[in-house]
Amino acid sequence: MTAVRRVGVLTGGGDAPGLNAVIRAVVRSCKVAHNVNVMGISEGFIGLVEMKVRELTMADASGLLVRGGTILGTTNRGNPFRYAYRRPDGVEELVDASGTAKKNIEKLGLDCLIVIGGDGSLSIGERFWRELGIPVVGVPKTIDNDLFATEFTFGFATALESATWALDCLHTTAESHHRVMLLEVMGREAGWIALHAGLAGGGDVVLIPEIPFKFEPLMAKFRARERRGRPFSLVVVAEGAAPEGGAQVFAGEDAVTGWKRLGGVSYQIAREIENRGGYEVRATVLGHIQRGGTPVPWDRILATRFGVEAVRLAVSGKFGHMVALRGDRIVSVPLADAIGHLKRVDPNCQIVQSARSIGIVFGDEDPETVDRSEG
Amino acid sequence: MTAVRRVGVLTGGGDAPGLNAVIRAVVRSCKVAHNVNVMGISEGFIGLVEMKVRELTMADASGLLVRGGTILGTTNRGNPFRYAYRRPDGVEELVDASGTAKKNIEKLGLDCLIVIGGDGSLSIGERFWRELGIPVVGVPKTIDNDLFATEFTFGFATALESATWALDCLHTTAESHHRVMLLEVMGREAGWIALHAGLAGGGDVVLIPEIPFKFEPLMAKFRARERRGRPFSLVVVAEGAAPEGGAQVFAGEDAVTGWKRLGGVSYQIAREIENRGGYEVRATVLGHIQRGGTPVPWDRILATRFGVEAVRLAVSGKFGHMVALRGDRIVSVPLADAIGHLKRVDPNCQIVQSARSIGIVFGDEDPETVDRSEG
Amino acid sequence: MTAVRRVGVLTGGGDAPGLNAVIRAVVRSCKVAHNVNVMGISEGFIGLVEMKVRELTMADASGLLVRGGTILGTTNRGNPFRYAYRRPDGVEELVDASGTAKKNIEKLGLDCLIVIGGDGSLSIGERFWRELGIPVVGVPKTIDNDLFATEFTFGFATALESATWALDCLHTTAESHHRVMLLEVMGREAGWIALHAGLAGGGDVVLIPEIPFKFEPLMAKFRARERRGRPFSLVVVAEGAAPEGGAQVFAGEDAVTGWKRLGGVSYQIAREIENRGGYEVRATVLGHIQRGGTPVPWDRILATRFGVEAVRLAVSGKFGHMVALRGDRIVSVPLADAIGHLKRVDPNCQIVQSARSIGIVFGDEDPETVDRSEG
Amino acid sequence: MTAVRRVGVLTGGGDAPGLNAVIRAVVRSCKVAHNVNVMGISEGFIGLVEMKVRELTMADASGLLVRGGTILGTTNRGNPFRYAYRRPDGVEELVDASGTAKKNIEKLGLDCLIVIGGDGSLSIGERFWRELGIPVVGVPKTIDNDLFATEFTFGFATALESATWALDCLHTTAESHHRVMLLEVMGREAGWIALHAGLAGGGDVVLIPEIPFKFEPLMAKFRARERRGRPFSLVVVAEGAAPEGGAQVFAGEDAVTGWKRLGGVSYQIAREIENRGGYEVRATVLGHIQRGGTPVPWDRILATRFGVEAVRLAVSGKFGHMVALRGDRIVSVPLADAIGHLKRVDPNCQIVQSARSIGIVFGDEDPETVDRSEG
Repeated sequence: MTAVRRVGVLTGGGDAPGLNAVIRAVVRSCKVAHNVNVMGISEGFIGLVEMKVRELTMADASGLLVRGGTILGTTNRGNPFRYAYRRPDGVEELVDASGTAKKNIEKLGLDCLIVIGGDGSLSIGERFWRELGIPVVGVPKTIDNDLFATEFTFGFATALESATWALDCLHTTAESHHRVMLLEVMGREAGWIALHAGLAGGGDVVLIPEIPFKFEPLMAKFRARERRGRPFSLVVVAEGAAPEGGAQVFAGEDAVTGWKRLGGVSYQIAREIENRGGYEVRATVLGHIQRGGTPVPWDRILATRFGVEAVRLAVSGKFGHMVALRGDRIVSVPLADAIGHLKRVDPNCQIVQSARSIGIVFGDEDPETVDRSEG
Repeated sequence: MTAVRRVGVLTGGGDAPGLNAVIRAVVRSCKVAHNVNVMGISEGFIGLVEMKVRELTMADASGLLVRGGTILGTTNRGNPFRYAYRRPDGVEELVDASGTAKKNIEKLGLDCLIVIGGDGSLSIGERFWRELGIPVVGVPKTIDNDLFATEFTFGFATALESATWALDCLHTTAESHHRVMLLEVMGREAGWIALHAGLAGGGDVVLIPEIPFKFEPLMAKFRARERRGRPFSLVVVAEGAAPEGGAQVFAGEDAVTGWKRLGGVSYQIAREIENRGGYEVRATVLGHIQRGGTPVPWDRILATRFGVEAVRLAVSGKFGHMVALRGDRIVSVPLADAIGHLKRVDPNCQIVQSARSIGIVFGDEDPETVDRSEG
Repeated sequence: MTAVRRVGVLTGGGDAPGLNAVIRAVVRSCKVAHNVNVMGISEGFIGLVEMKVRELTMADASGLLVRGGTILGTTNRGNPFRYAYRRPDGVEELVDASGTAKKNIEKLGLDCLIVIGGDGSLSIGERFWRELGIPVVGVPKTIDNDLFATEFTFGFATALESATWALDCLHTTAESHHRVMLLEVMGREAGWIALHAGLAGGGDVVLIPEIPFKFEPLMAKFRARERRGRPFSLVVVAEGAAPEGGAQVFAGEDAVTGWKRLGGVSYQIAREIENRGGYEVRATVLGHIQRGGTPVPWDRILATRFGVEAVRLAVSGKFGHMVALRGDRIVSVPLADAIGHLKRVDPNCQIVQSARSIGIVFGDEDPETVDRSEG
Repeated sequence: MTAVRRVGVLTGGGDAPGLNAVIRAVVRSCKVAHNVNVMGISEGFIGLVEMKVRELTMADASGLLVRGGTILGTTNRGNPFRYAYRRPDGVEELVDASGTAKKNIEKLGLDCLIVIGGDGSLSIGERFWRELGIPVVGVPKTIDNDLFATEFTFGFATALESATWALDCLHTTAESHHRVMLLEVMGREAGWIALHAGLAGGGDVVLIPEIPFKFEPLMAKFRARERRGRPFSLVVVAEGAAPEGGAQVFAGEDAVTGWKRLGGVSYQIAREIENRGGYEVRATVLGHIQRGGTPVPWDRILATRFGVEAVRLAVSGKFGHMVALRGDRIVSVPLADAIGHLKRVDPNCQIVQSARSIGIVFGDEDPETVDRSEG
């Protein structure tokens, strides 16, 4: 095993609170524990192709724990295997720039590339390692918490905090005005944020992609609460939630807004609830607010531990692996095993059952049986 | 002057953080300082017509400082002069129920009615006093801070905190992704929240109803920032903002969303910016989140002082007046003088000029002169 | 197995954020899922002896997610086996009142007693079950996170949030004034809060009971930071931290303050650092603030899941057990196995090693080797 | 009037949230509105003597709104008229270094010196202008809000937020444990933070330097609350509070702690309350936490407006003045008029009377008349 003297680090995909804390931990553990230099690569894999690189010092790592986002920049369009090359005549074409990336890694003298990213970026990292032999170590990132192979990812706890705070805000206004309030949160494929925010923020209904819903049980829940003197309800909607047998219904209508705004399914659910009568309904799309802000302590700690362990993998030559949380330990798993599967909410898991036990409705219930509690 | 033995209190219009703090202060000062009983009237003026009333004790006033909303409930449709009466045949008709309200006030033995509300509710209160001789005292409420005759209203500081927090969140994600991020905040007629949030949250562009905007200065600002190595920008949009000569342009398209969601002008501004090219744009509508949550200290204090002074006006027989903030004092002003005018942002006021001085663009600038700073 | 019709619930020991969320979940799952009645017992076991009991309804469980503390009240002096009985002549004597408690449980018709508490309260619960045959189910609680048999307890995450927020505040003032700032947090026997807060809040030194410290490595760390142009440092101190071979030194001096204030070891450490010269030092004892406030989402969720599972144990007759977190599941463990051992920080565990890797000093290092990083 | 081409800016005295926002506004308005260069002087006036100076660019001003503290550094020991000069033989002596400071200002080509500081720093600034003819403009700063001539200073609102948050935390634990909880906040000479936090955080007793207190009314208040079924109380103590006729009593005992910790009067008040019997008492000293953290929106706005106006004074040659808030405007006042007087709480002012009206006890009441409310 050759000694590792210099590592590169990049962030890819959508930003998440804690990215900067990983970068900080990578720099600090390289410097303090391993005497290794760190090169920061800007804007994900694109920075490798275009050689946007700078050295990162202890001073650069200062003040990062409380900062959301990533000082390296990131992008959702950074696949070097399909790089948008702008020809001299101004036309863009997609080319394979992975060779350029590899050459640049050699030119920079990087003994390892630490890739912090979601399923997309980690898949590119895996190809770098498997196809091109580039020594890669991965750090999993997704605020949706839908990455297979790690129990939690950083960013999720902060997104949950924002969503719960929003529910706390909507709660008092729902109560004062006797309204049904919807909050739409992130989660296109997996409902983790909606499920957890629903539990933490006192949601009465939680709609997630994994459980197609009907409107009848929702209306039954609203009426049950009204009977108990609580003529208002909170509905948490994952952006990927869909009615039973009906993603199409919603998809078609989404086009009319004329602008590709984030989310919007909650507007359509709101309209349908209002059409069924009896309730004043309001919907709020929390949107990008969930991605930003100062990370909560848990995300800072998890991100720090991920960063430290990624460096340890790098200096011990364990390439082609990524770090992951298992119980109270950070472990390593082969990238090949980790990518390509989503971790979705099992409709029969304990946490969903617990939610049902306290009366949370997911929309797949028999309306006759919803919330029979008396007082 | 007859001694005041019993007062009624109601909350009307949209909810705002601090309503409960006013109620708490009314109850406590009645009990502690004046030995007066308090009747709480539910759901604004409707509760007077329908006799939804209960006594409020010191115990009822406990724990209210931190609670958003109003324990009395409120409604936007509570005008007793146009009360929605449901006839035995099920048809609703609008009737004048102010006489019923007056009779109920007498039946309840109320020596004064404290009305906590915005311009609408205070106007009703003023008619009660002027036309019907009902002893009324007002407490001004609007999170938009657009009430004439008081320097600040409670709720505004909490809404500002939410809007600023949202901007802080969007800031790091804008920076990481090199995006133009729009945040739409409340303010249909007046841009106070947008102006203050723009100053507090580092907005680059602030669009308010009082200053019709053009797109050219916005694009000039984005480019100026890009030249300085800051290829991202934050735009704060009041929901009532409109382009020069063009409320119509926007109004027509608003219908297509098919649901009367709050706000949306920011979506259309986002599309236009994107159409002009060069930037990835995202828009978030903060919506009802601004109305809720735990009031910030300033709102709790102002609400408390308003409540105490309203009771003092009541027991000293100063009816037909409302409380208001002037400098460091709570004063009283005739309701007749206070209602019917909006307090809007003067485009030439000091705070707007200060905002311009640090480079904030309002959209009425000559694009040639926008942000000439070099470094 | 007899059907469970009515359960009692009590909270014992120091309060922790999330107690109310457990109570809410107990009431809601009893009502919604099991058609069981709930009696709330006031002030821990004392309420059982003195029959301070009331029924808890769905309405009582409303609004509890955001409230710190416990609506049932609690006490640190509630052992019914050593009950402080006040004789008619006014003299207090300690008597065994467990028989009275048992009789009252029968009188109330409780089919199960749910005890929410720390090691002390759970030990009493275990004796109730083992010695008196009272059907007991436990819910573990301690903000110190030092309970054996559960990976996490609710309250810890909120205490960590408060401690981290305090560090964030002290950070900027330390930096501006070039000071060494100490923050003393809870943790008499176990340093979990200090360790996690140190990681989350950018602590430079972390002092915990499990690792006796010397002053030389601390001073070496301060100087190392100064050399790098960071002439300030943050020190996180668990209240139970002690210098090598020297709890006595500190204990003797603690008496002089004349009042049994919480904590104080940080004052003495501060003085010693200052005596060694070169630094302006300030110390803050966070104290009871860590116990209060609105629970963070994670604590609300964990508390809710604990409450639901405790009821499930109760209705399935699994007495003498308590709920516990293992991975992503709530499991049950015999009370007898859970009580009487503390979970302390292993000085060689991964998280401590990770902390050392990024330069955090615990005070047991060779001063010569502390933080050799250059830049 | 000579054109202003270059200004210097320094921060002096204790740090306060918002200092960085002033610096940001100074830099931005110099660059954007006036084409003026800015030199940042490190560590207050000392940086002028020792020539610790660097240019501040737009990039330096980036990201400062959310950062507590001051990027320029500050010190409480920075009087150039009594500069601690270290002689070649190592002995320190106090010398007048104001001449050196003046020469350095000329060498740097500063056309104006903007001094951001409290009464001490502004007094030095006033002497610079009056005695040495150095063109000075002042920006008032104190989190205690005790500066004469300005209605509010930045930092106060953030300190109030921290103090109120601490009270919210203590509230739930006081309630759960039936305790008297004391919170000691800043305010050596003036009780503004204690008074406002008491109003915002539901304090039952507020002790401030301006109103010497007796213990009897406190005990009467505790008993009155107990009679109403609220056997717990919150006491807010300004660090400068003292019992009637008795600052001495407390001062003598303060020495015994052996370390010059901030505050501590609350420990002694706690002991006295406990000695009088019947209550479990706990005290927390909030300390330096009040100085730090992210400024709340109001402080960011006020600081920004101060910075902009200070630059406007500088470029229009209005030296020897400082900016101040009057109503909704930033105005200028002569430094000579502003310094040397404290703004203290008038015991008869409206806000104190309002506090009394809702039952807050200040300790100067006749115990017989305290809180006669019944329910």
